[in-house]
Amino acid sequence: MTSTAVEESPISHVLVIVAMEAEANPLIELLGHLTLVEPSVSFSPFRIYSGDHGSRYKVTLVTNGKDKRFGVDNVGTVPAAIAAFASIHQFSPDLVINAGTAGGFKAKGACIGDVFLTKCVCNHDRRIPIPGFDAYGRGSYSSLSSDNIAKAFDFKQGNLTTSNSLDHSPQDDALMLDNDASIKDMEGAAIAWVAEQAKVPYLGIKCITDIVDGDRVTQDEFMENLHKASLSLRDAVPKVIDYVLGKTIEDI
Amino acid sequence: MTSTAVEESPISHVLVIVAMEAEANPLIELLGHLTLVEPSVSFSPFRIYSGDHGSRYKVTLVTNGKDKRFGVDNVGTVPAAIAAFASIHQFSPDLVINAGTAGGFKAKGACIGDVFLTKCVCNHDRRIPIPGFDAYGRGSYSSLSSDNIAKAFDFKQGNLTTSNSLDHSPQDDALMLDNDASIKDMEGAAIAWVAEQAKVPYLGIKCITDIVDGDRVTQDEFMENLHKASLSLRDAVPKVIDYVLGKTIEDI
Repeated sequence: MTSTAVEESPISHVLVIVAMEAEANPLIELLGHLTLVEPSVSFSPFRIYSGDHGSRYKVTLVTNGKDKRFGVDNVGTVPAAIAAFASIHQFSPDLVINAGTAGGFKAKGACIGDVFLTKCVCNHDRRIPIPGFDAYGRGSYSSLSSDNIAKAFDFKQGNLTTSNSLDHSPQDDALMLDNDASIKDMEGAAIAWVAEQAKVPYLGIKCITDIVDGDRVTQDEFMENLHKASLSLRDAVPKVIDYVLGKTIEDI
Repeated sequence: MTSTAVEESPISHVLVIVAMEAEANPLIELLGHLTLVEPSVSFSPFRIYSGDHGSRYKVTLVTNGKDKRFGVDNVGTVPAAIAAFASIHQFSPDLVINAGTAGGFKAKGACIGDVFLTKCVCNHDRRIPIPGFDAYGRGSYSSLSSDNIAKAFDFKQGNLTTSNSLDHSPQDDALMLDNDASIKDMEGAAIAWVAEQAKVPYLGIKCITDIVDGDRVTQDEFMENLHKASLSLRDAVPKVIDYVLGKTIEDI
């Protein structure tokens, strides 16, 4: 599949990648028609739900699954990258939507419960101070142009910055500022990199659970707002899916 | 493939995963008989070299490949995880050897050029302070028991700690100390996690390019010693391959 082919033909199959079960469950319930599909690799940690969407389209939703040893969701970039790699190969989607919760920067106008669409997507925990490797570490992956979708549904937009930590160190703070980030997550940049390799467009839809530049401890705020944000996600993602299906990338 | 099956039957196929071309090239040249193989996923960034090793065994070597946009090696956990996931699926190896360069801790007796075999493998850049997720973030993956191999070739042994940064922040330092690390790399924990999912034993073989708790700037020391360490790797890895082939996991 070439980039040109994707841009010229209408979107008929959307792949939605969600890290945590708690984030995905309300959405899976609402979509209703999706059934659990066997991954093509037997030892895959992720879970795949796929099905028709109306009479002409398909939607596939993948969660990262649970770690068997620790019993918690496989959060972070490594499981997300594997889920993206394997499911893009198995389903050849026309668009990858990475839906999930995120921290938001109040300096960029983010409030708890807000829905953000991604612009540029970067890493802030890959510091490799060797020329060439430094830019690779940051990544700066492009996102599907989301201006019209944001206008249609009154969503916010901003740069997404990714690391493998829920908290943030002073080094992270400096790089997130450099990345001009409005939102912070733990998977986006990995999925965007894999999508770039496969030449499939990427769009992040992120609901805000906590304020990165606020006064509260991240994990407390995150746990408190996870369910509420997952319900926002359930409302937002189907709107975007229905908006993009049948349109070409250029039309969006 | 079950864990028991792997432990009872002799090792006949070893998969070697190396992040950088510069690390892998001397080894590929020495092994000589390996040929470039097409990955089963068309958009795979990694490169696969595979072939017979003597009349009874097989060796497959995978490098993470180069990033097309930045022109540098795909270092870090995300490309390593994908390379491990896809090549374990494609080749069903009996053992995954993760060979590469690493930083070493002089407090643990590490010197430039030393060869270390891994004991426990942990992450030090996945800080998720929520009960259950904290232990998942650290990982603590087990390694093939390497006492006899270390004795046979006078290699050192120690815990490996992984992050996506070549440098290290004060937060990293605290967690590396918690992980009781002798060596620090940018891929090991990701490969060990994927190997754990696939129930294939993992062993890291790491040559020291720089001293983590020393006075010099990591990137300068790393670049200066990369070639020398890659030559040590070329000498060390075939010894371990020949040691393990034909033995069961229990015999090693």
